[in-house]
Amino acid sequence: MSETSNTKLSKKSGLPPGSLVHIGKSRSEKIDISLLKYNSETAEFHNCADIMELNSLVDKNYMNWININGIHEIESIEQIGKEFNIHPLVLEDIVNAEQRPKFEDYDDYFFVTLKASGSISVKNIMDVQQISFIVGKNYLISFHENKNELFQKNIERILNGKSKARKNGCDFLAYLLIDTVVDNYYFALEEIEDKIEILEEKILKDTTGKTLQEIQKMKRLLVMLLKAVFPLREAVSKLERKESELIQDSSAIFFRDIYDHIIHIIESVESQRDILSGLMDVYMSNTSNRMNAVMKVLAIIATIFMPITFFAGVYGMNIENIPELKWQYGYLFFWSVCIASVVLMLIYFKRRKWL
Amino acid sequence: MSETSNTKLSKKSGLPPGSLVHIGKSRSEKIDISLLKYNSETAEFHNCADIMELNSLVDKNYMNWININGIHEIESIEQIGKEFNIHPLVLEDIVNAEQRPKFEDYDDYFFVTLKASGSISVKNIMDVQQISFIVGKNYLISFHENKNELFQKNIERILNGKSKARKNGCDFLAYLLIDTVVDNYYFALEEIEDKIEILEEKILKDTTGKTLQEIQKMKRLLVMLLKAVFPLREAVSKLERKESELIQDSSAIFFRDIYDHIIHIIESVESQRDILSGLMDVYMSNTSNRMNAVMKVLAIIATIFMPITFFAGVYGMNIENIPELKWQYGYLFFWSVCIASVVLMLIYFKRRKWL
Amino acid sequence: MSETSNTKLSKKSGLPPGSLVHIGKSRSEKIDISLLKYNSETAEFHNCADIMELNSLVDKNYMNWININGIHEIESIEQIGKEFNIHPLVLEDIVNAEQRPKFEDYDDYFFVTLKASGSISVKNIMDVQQISFIVGKNYLISFHENKNELFQKNIERILNGKSKARKNGCDFLAYLLIDTVVDNYYFALEEIEDKIEILEEKILKDTTGKTLQEIQKMKRLLVMLLKAVFPLREAVSKLERKESELIQDSSAIFFRDIYDHIIHIIESVESQRDILSGLMDVYMSNTSNRMNAVMKVLAIIATIFMPITFFAGVYGMNIENIPELKWQYGYLFFWSVCIASVVLMLIYFKRRKWL
Amino acid sequence: MSETSNTKLSKKSGLPPGSLVHIGKSRSEKIDISLLKYNSETAEFHNCADIMELNSLVDKNYMNWININGIHEIESIEQIGKEFNIHPLVLEDIVNAEQRPKFEDYDDYFFVTLKASGSISVKNIMDVQQISFIVGKNYLISFHENKNELFQKNIERILNGKSKARKNGCDFLAYLLIDTVVDNYYFALEEIEDKIEILEEKILKDTTGKTLQEIQKMKRLLVMLLKAVFPLREAVSKLERKESELIQDSSAIFFRDIYDHIIHIIESVESQRDILSGLMDVYMSNTSNRMNAVMKVLAIIATIFMPITFFAGVYGMNIENIPELKWQYGYLFFWSVCIASVVLMLIYFKRRKWL
Amino acid sequence: MSETSNTKLSKKSGLPPGSLVHIGKSRSEKIDISLLKYNSETAEFHNCADIMELNSLVDKNYMNWININGIHEIESIEQIGKEFNIHPLVLEDIVNAEQRPKFEDYDDYFFVTLKASGSISVKNIMDVQQISFIVGKNYLISFHENKNELFQKNIERILNGKSKARKNGCDFLAYLLIDTVVDNYYFALEEIEDKIEILEEKILKDTTGKTLQEIQKMKRLLVMLLKAVFPLREAVSKLERKESELIQDSSAIFFRDIYDHIIHIIESVESQRDILSGLMDVYMSNTSNRMNAVMKVLAIIATIFMPITFFAGVYGMNIENIPELKWQYGYLFFWSVCIASVVLMLIYFKRRKWL
Repeated sequence: MSETSNTKLSKKSGLPPGSLVHIGKSRSEKIDISLLKYNSETAEFHNCADIMELNSLVDKNYMNWININGIHEIESIEQIGKEFNIHPLVLEDIVNAEQRPKFEDYDDYFFVTLKASGSISVKNIMDVQQISFIVGKNYLISFHENKNELFQKNIERILNGKSKARKNGCDFLAYLLIDTVVDNYYFALEEIEDKIEILEEKILKDTTGKTLQEIQKMKRLLVMLLKAVFPLREAVSKLERKESELIQDSSAIFFRDIYDHIIHIIESVESQRDILSGLMDVYMSNTSNRMNAVMKVLAIIATIFMPITFFAGVYGMNIENIPELKWQYGYLFFWSVCIASVVLMLIYFKRRKWL
Repeated sequence: MSETSNTKLSKKSGLPPGSLVHIGKSRSEKIDISLLKYNSETAEFHNCADIMELNSLVDKNYMNWININGIHEIESIEQIGKEFNIHPLVLEDIVNAEQRPKFEDYDDYFFVTLKASGSISVKNIMDVQQISFIVGKNYLISFHENKNELFQKNIERILNGKSKARKNGCDFLAYLLIDTVVDNYYFALEEIEDKIEILEEKILKDTTGKTLQEIQKMKRLLVMLLKAVFPLREAVSKLERKESELIQDSSAIFFRDIYDHIIHIIESVESQRDILSGLMDVYMSNTSNRMNAVMKVLAIIATIFMPITFFAGVYGMNIENIPELKWQYGYLFFWSVCIASVVLMLIYFKRRKWL
Repeated sequence: MSETSNTKLSKKSGLPPGSLVHIGKSRSEKIDISLLKYNSETAEFHNCADIMELNSLVDKNYMNWININGIHEIESIEQIGKEFNIHPLVLEDIVNAEQRPKFEDYDDYFFVTLKASGSISVKNIMDVQQISFIVGKNYLISFHENKNELFQKNIERILNGKSKARKNGCDFLAYLLIDTVVDNYYFALEEIEDKIEILEEKILKDTTGKTLQEIQKMKRLLVMLLKAVFPLREAVSKLERKESELIQDSSAIFFRDIYDHIIHIIESVESQRDILSGLMDVYMSNTSNRMNAVMKVLAIIATIFMPITFFAGVYGMNIENIPELKWQYGYLFFWSVCIASVVLMLIYFKRRKWL
Repeated sequence: MSETSNTKLSKKSGLPPGSLVHIGKSRSEKIDISLLKYNSETAEFHNCADIMELNSLVDKNYMNWININGIHEIESIEQIGKEFNIHPLVLEDIVNAEQRPKFEDYDDYFFVTLKASGSISVKNIMDVQQISFIVGKNYLISFHENKNELFQKNIERILNGKSKARKNGCDFLAYLLIDTVVDNYYFALEEIEDKIEILEEKILKDTTGKTLQEIQKMKRLLVMLLKAVFPLREAVSKLERKESELIQDSSAIFFRDIYDHIIHIIESVESQRDILSGLMDVYMSNTSNRMNAVMKVLAIIATIFMPITFFAGVYGMNIENIPELKWQYGYLFFWSVCIASVVLMLIYFKRRKWL
Repeated sequence: MSETSNTKLSKKSGLPPGSLVHIGKSRSEKIDISLLKYNSETAEFHNCADIMELNSLVDKNYMNWININGIHEIESIEQIGKEFNIHPLVLEDIVNAEQRPKFEDYDDYFFVTLKASGSISVKNIMDVQQISFIVGKNYLISFHENKNELFQKNIERILNGKSKARKNGCDFLAYLLIDTVVDNYYFALEEIEDKIEILEEKILKDTTGKTLQEIQKMKRLLVMLLKAVFPLREAVSKLERKESELIQDSSAIFFRDIYDHIIHIIESVESQRDILSGLMDVYMSNTSNRMNAVMKVLAIIATIFMPITFFAGVYGMNIENIPELKWQYGYLFFWSVCIASVVLMLIYFKRRKWL
């Protein structure tokens, strides 16, 4: 994935800063705009046709959660940027699906971008999706790469009044959404852990070249997960330390909780990597053990048959006057020598523990 | 272990923060509630049927040590949370048996959660149990995953008045209990060290594929221990630095002692890991040495018998006029050539130190 | 590259500090001097024959971007140094094409030197070029090792008035140019990533010694890229933290953006190195798997033919009274024994999964 | 060593803090108590029967150096603890021979514990001994695990008035003693370095499995040394930074010197470890080179004899009408073919550089 | 080298601190004392017979650069120490040729000790020489292990008035000399880089056991260089941060330049180590590839000759009534079978890409 998308990153080379260039899979469907406005008493959900309609609905007396599914319509992003007075570099980061997770504070609002882990495909590639938040005093704008149901439960809980968000500011809503994304990593992590466990059993039975490739793929999945989570640690730590004035003390304690989760995920990824490198060792050692086994069979066969073949050769010689040839029990004698030789060899192998 | 429990971690995904979800092995037995109330003059121990009874017994004029064995009855945990005014995130961490060890200060109380190492099973899996403490001015609440005798001695010593705890606050009691948990790691560590020592002797004699798997298992045990101890270092260092105002100067010095123990355990684990990676090297090199030995036997046998088999073949030819065939001492000559050839080969192998 | 150029680094040994010695590929072409002077209203571009002409054109009422292509004419560099009152150590660094990227603040101006990545040759060697900037209140002097078109777009955009640079100071121009250089790394990175991807497919099919050498070459390319980018991180971080007073707040935010890009590149290089070391493992394991396959063929052939060759030898013996020899179905019997032996062996190999 | 002693560490589990439990090799001999009291004019040495006698001799107008050889008599240690008002945790650390080196400041006195390296046994195990110091205004108490002559020279030099200690406080005496211990590490380090050098020559000649085990043992010796020296760095750095008010400026400069020595030892240990891992590589590669050599001999023998044995077989066939059999020069022809075949093979091997 | 010299380090064990013991190669030649006194107008060079003569020549109105070649005459060093009031620990460090590079500030003067890299011998051992500087207000004393021409150019440039040193204080002279030493590392580094490049080409052609030893030797050379340069980084960084008040602002900027060079050298050493470990991989993989080639030849030979030897054996049997024996075209038939068998085998090997 990263290879093909990175190719697009160089598209920006040579453009002035703040130029909006969509980087990511190209899409053609229309972007999806919705608004959830609520306060402690009421909550309304609106699907908007375009930014114009959205602007007419936003109301500074409510908390306004604007959700944009799709970042490929540069013009809409620019319109929102203008409306909410967003710095061009922030807009540039939003439409760049290869952006590294980070937190930035811009006095009037703060900006968080992160990666949501998706399902892992049959080919063991993880679908990673970028999500960005702009959080101001009474608005939160969330941007997704494409349509998805990730925040569906959060929306429902706000609408039916069960969520604490109703009584808190947009910083708490930001917490809820980031928490949803981070908790989602556990699904990916657990899926990978299951796959590694299966791989582990497989490796003890059968070690074809394919098992090695699977170990490599698992390594990459973990790296992919780490690349999503690792920079997030720094970003969330800034939220926890209240680097933006928009974050209240009561929310900070919740961001500390997310921070703990992230550390937990990172440590789990690290220990899974340890397990994988242990599996590599097992794989490598299995390969040499099998080679050893092959060698032993070869050595045993050669050691048993070479002497007796030599004996047969001796009595096949045409030299005159070989006494054994004319001896009455010659044939019996030959077989006795052969059997004795084989038995001695087998005893020797038994002693060396080759058998 | 971690794999099956982690699976449950994703259960929390999508739930609002502070939702209490028990994560860990599911249990059905009733939880066990007890209260030890004491001051410098007197000490009483009560088994309580439920939280109601407990509340009626707690007395702010004493130090109250409440001990909850079992974290799977969400309602009881919630009742305690209400009674002592505990932050929902703390309760969430208490019922999550996969929580990473940590210390958190909440002005009125502080919260410590850690892992107690248990016995190591025949399959070399360590039983790790989560213990959490909430420490306030005159109360300490301890939570265990299940019934256990870990703190039995501490209870007895307080009851019979021998413990220093009787003359100190709840911060000192917290120290005593954490110290008990940390000292307990030594049992696990020493058990692992003994197993590694046995493994070491085994590896010099016999290196089947199983030895490698045992090395891997030992590695995992050490990782498991490290995962319990490593985050604890940070937590205890916060206690030592008196990040909570509830910790008195005289207690801080004791937490420094625990800190030293933790560092000592971490360093021991690290050096055991070094030993294990040395064992891996020995194992790998034994494998190639054995392969070498097999190859040598094969090469020696082949080198000795190939020439003499050839000689036998020569004198088995039906070509007319082979002078040796009719020579009187032909058979003797043949054997002399064979023996000379074998002796020369043996001398050669002796020189190359193959024998 | 580094080997031959480093050789020259020792040329400076024994010289007094501030001695200008050109280090890098020796060139003979004349250096190329140009001036772009602009303010928010107007912009002019001049090619200058020499430093004298340049000095006569520089105008303190404009922003003056002086561009020097070629650092091998020591006298010209010295003249500029005198004119703009540049510290001799800075001039020494400018003419040393082996200089490590860095930022230095000298009150009146600041100095940044960095490496621009160029194209990767067929032999997988990257062309790295040194670029230095001296940035004062109303002038910016850029030095290139040789003529190149890297900043052509920036010049055009300033001339046609589209660039934000027109309304900003020289610190913003410095940002634009550094951004151009950093964005350029993406080209190199993506080219390397593509090559590694091709290598990856290749390694699964065919693993001659050459594949290993290609892995090594890719490693070196990544090291070369890292050597260019890694020290730059520190330099740009100083710019972002406004260590020079010449950098305005509005520009600092842009340098933070460059800093993000650099971190992103470093992380990508690191993960490519991980992939390469995974490829090494695959390569190594393929080598032993192939050895295993060869050994198996050898062992199977030997195991099949050694017994039957022995049987043929037995019936070729000249011993009298071998009953089978005179038996009517002797020949049939012999072949039956041979075929039975071979079949038994094949069954054995099937069971051991060698076939 | 560490394995058996650690076993005892768990003895402390479950005991209240400050419980004195001797951890280390059990001993029965009486502990040895001596007092050296001195000032700039006079110095006296006393052997004391017990702590009572010691107490009667200690004189606050002198510097009192109390030396306790043996830490297994818990009661004597407790008596000293009471007399000098030592914190119970300090006493606990003194009698625990598995204590990690450290420095602790207790206002009235400071506490340093470290490991003295002893001789290396034939089995390549190093005798490590724990030494602790309690340093107060006019007293220094040193504790050894057993009787030894380590500080004999220091005692003599103080008695004959040659030592600077006579004119300085107890902090300077502490410096002298720690310096003696640290200088002693050089003996161990140099012994290990010599052993590694011998091992290095050995490995080039002969690489049996034993050499590998010796490499492993050397690794452990270095780890043991590092475990003694590494935590000491932190302790001495605290002394250098005068964390105790008892350390005067003039002494601090001397502790800086010890600090330098420790860094030097750590760096030497690290580079010896590098050398050892290089030796591992040489060992491993020697193993495969020898395997290669064995394989070559096998391949050469097989390649030479297989064709000519086939020829002999051909002319041993009983097929009628084989023209060569009746040819007059048949036997000569056969030998010519054999010799030609062998010569061709040898030329081939020469070309492939196998000979 | 380090092994034999370290042996001497333990000579100091047991001696009081500040005892001067010469550690290094023992020498007998007389030490060489010279004085260069200069100010901005004049400069004089004197060779002194002994310290007495030196003292009579030193003039506080000039800058006095005292150069001592040879540190084995303890008495002379002590005399200088007394004259310039140098701390005994500094003198101890000067005569200890195994001293780790460092900077120390002693109010009236500062002390710098470092290692100058010398030529690399045929056996690939680098001659490292210790140089120490004591720098006071108007004097600089430099100590060398033995006579050498390292600073000859600096002396000449001061005498003929070309050096900036004439117009600056002793801190600038210190800069000039340290710069000379650091620039000298480039010679060693480049020599090693050249040797590694040669080694690289060699390894692709021929990989005997010797190549591995050469890799190991190169590793050691790099470690030796790193051991000289790495601690120097810290020392020079202290000079740059003006930890001594004797260093003026204008000089500090020059020390920053040295600091840059040191970082550059360290990074180059690191990347050379990377290259060496890449070479190790190539070496190891070449070894297995060669083993693979040997195995293939063996397998091919065995596979081709075993079947046909069996056929020859069959027709050599004395069983009566073998029809082929009496068949007219028996011999032709036999050879057809043999050739067919060989051709089939060759096709099989071609397919498996063994040929």
